[in-house]
Amino acid sequence: MKIATIRNGDPDGQLVVVSRDGTRFVAATGIARTLQEAMENWSIAEPALRQLAGTLEADVATGEPIRSADLAAPLPRAWQWLDGSTYLSHAVLMSRVFRMDLPPTDRPLMYQGASDHFYGPYDDLIVPTEADGIDFEGEFGVVTDEVPMGTDARQAAEHIRLIVQINDWSLRALAPIEMKTGFGWIQAKPHCSMAPFAVTPDELGEAWRDGRVALPLEVKWNAEPFGVVDGYPMAFSFAELVAHAARTRKLVAGTVIGSGTISNENYREVGSACIAERRGIELADSGEARTPFMSFGDTVEMEARGLAGETLFGRIVQKVAQG
Amino acid sequence: MKIATIRNGDPDGQLVVVSRDGTRFVAATGIARTLQEAMENWSIAEPALRQLAGTLEADVATGEPIRSADLAAPLPRAWQWLDGSTYLSHAVLMSRVFRMDLPPTDRPLMYQGASDHFYGPYDDLIVPTEADGIDFEGEFGVVTDEVPMGTDARQAAEHIRLIVQINDWSLRALAPIEMKTGFGWIQAKPHCSMAPFAVTPDELGEAWRDGRVALPLEVKWNAEPFGVVDGYPMAFSFAELVAHAARTRKLVAGTVIGSGTISNENYREVGSACIAERRGIELADSGEARTPFMSFGDTVEMEARGLAGETLFGRIVQKVAQG
Repeated sequence: MKIATIRNGDPDGQLVVVSRDGTRFVAATGIARTLQEAMENWSIAEPALRQLAGTLEADVATGEPIRSADLAAPLPRAWQWLDGSTYLSHAVLMSRVFRMDLPPTDRPLMYQGASDHFYGPYDDLIVPTEADGIDFEGEFGVVTDEVPMGTDARQAAEHIRLIVQINDWSLRALAPIEMKTGFGWIQAKPHCSMAPFAVTPDELGEAWRDGRVALPLEVKWNAEPFGVVDGYPMAFSFAELVAHAARTRKLVAGTVIGSGTISNENYREVGSACIAERRGIELADSGEARTPFMSFGDTVEMEARGLAGETLFGRIVQKVAQG
Repeated sequence: MKIATIRNGDPDGQLVVVSRDGTRFVAATGIARTLQEAMENWSIAEPALRQLAGTLEADVATGEPIRSADLAAPLPRAWQWLDGSTYLSHAVLMSRVFRMDLPPTDRPLMYQGASDHFYGPYDDLIVPTEADGIDFEGEFGVVTDEVPMGTDARQAAEHIRLIVQINDWSLRALAPIEMKTGFGWIQAKPHCSMAPFAVTPDELGEAWRDGRVALPLEVKWNAEPFGVVDGYPMAFSFAELVAHAARTRKLVAGTVIGSGTISNENYREVGSACIAERRGIELADSGEARTPFMSFGDTVEMEARGLAGETLFGRIVQKVAQG
């Protein structure tokens, strides 16, 4: 099942169910006004939403056509956004380049980021200056229902209700300054973006494997190929990330947990999901990072299609603009 | 003006205006259902709430008596909670004890914490195990209306609408492990608590000085005095903290920004607002931290009264319980 949120003037928008091909929608009227509301009552909302999805699939004449401009992030704001950093090839390269200690391997890395707004898939990123080192980060994320404190990874898997595709915007000139304090990032992390469709795990078929998204994410910068990276090789599964986050706190329904920027060991062949990694490779290879960060007016596109090449999360297409 | 939130089964509770002596309240019906709603329309809500407060003050027979059990945190959940660490005496001591670099002095330290729930003033803290090193942190915080990206400190002062008193619970066994990653804290920071009354800055009179709360916060652990610490000596004002947070992001209305655990240079005389600091002093003095962290069943009390000794934020009285 595919879910989206249509802008209606309210910060949470209107929840809709989307056809598998991503072209038509029907409002979830009578089931839940917003995705947040649905997450809070998932056991009741899910079967009703699935029934609606079935009706939409059964007759191509039903529903309304999706217009890109109407699409907000499927969850336009959340009470909690926790982002991991689970791809070792990225961590090892960055540690080497920035001469930092290798991160611990016995527990996930995770920070809490701004969740009061997620950009829609076609929204401009608004930032103050190019000097901050504007970068994208292509990744996957999950949305949970309420997770009790102390939930273990096996149980946590059952709380993963939706999968989303995320662009975690980063300001690289500020990131190391903030990281050095040990307090995590405030200025280095503007609001993130989500691809238009949140999907239930079954929608991925065999590509939802070991609590990971085993699908290639294609990233383009100014319409040029930048990377086609496999989401699978996470050092910790999403279920393990959920359990990590729930160790000393209950997770509120609608919590979003991210994988961190996707990275593959053969990044020289497949490319990267963020500019920082390409610069890290250049620095490691030649002592000089030649690729600049983004300029105002630049665009980034991200899309992960299903195993049969079908539309899954839809696409992120964003431009960088000055605030 | 004093504001509180009464539990009504809804996660955001019901907004009420409270008499200056903290004994009576009247619902803000027709003005705003919740404090979050009021923060989003502060320019309209504030004068209406002040008028209600005037009516309540004019006639002691008006309003209903406040019952402690009904009091939630004034803002029971927020879209964003950013906590500073602005007391240099604390930072210097902790750096020395944990053999870390001194934090930078040219920019505030700040992390993003869990904002999906704030404990009410008399709620038990629920944590999984004493082994995590359960500690309180007494501090002040501010609630802002919407702050545009790039707002400077002078303008930021105008966005500080309410002042709150906070207990920022910490799990000290986990804090250094997470801090070392540079990603900030997830497991080390359970939900915080707020004293019952949020107050407008004018309520503090001369004690709201240079964007700081120049009032003593009294902290008791198991009814024994633990510290009476002055909120004033912040290295950065609340306005500077707001501007720091808004450098690359718009702050949503209802953003809560904290001072970090209060600490005074003469901590040996006045005591501390957290156990970690007392242990740090012991470690510095004798090479051994003798004071243990909290046990299940322990209580902490915190209160900052006004310049004339009057009730201001009300009191936090919490017990630690096993989850």
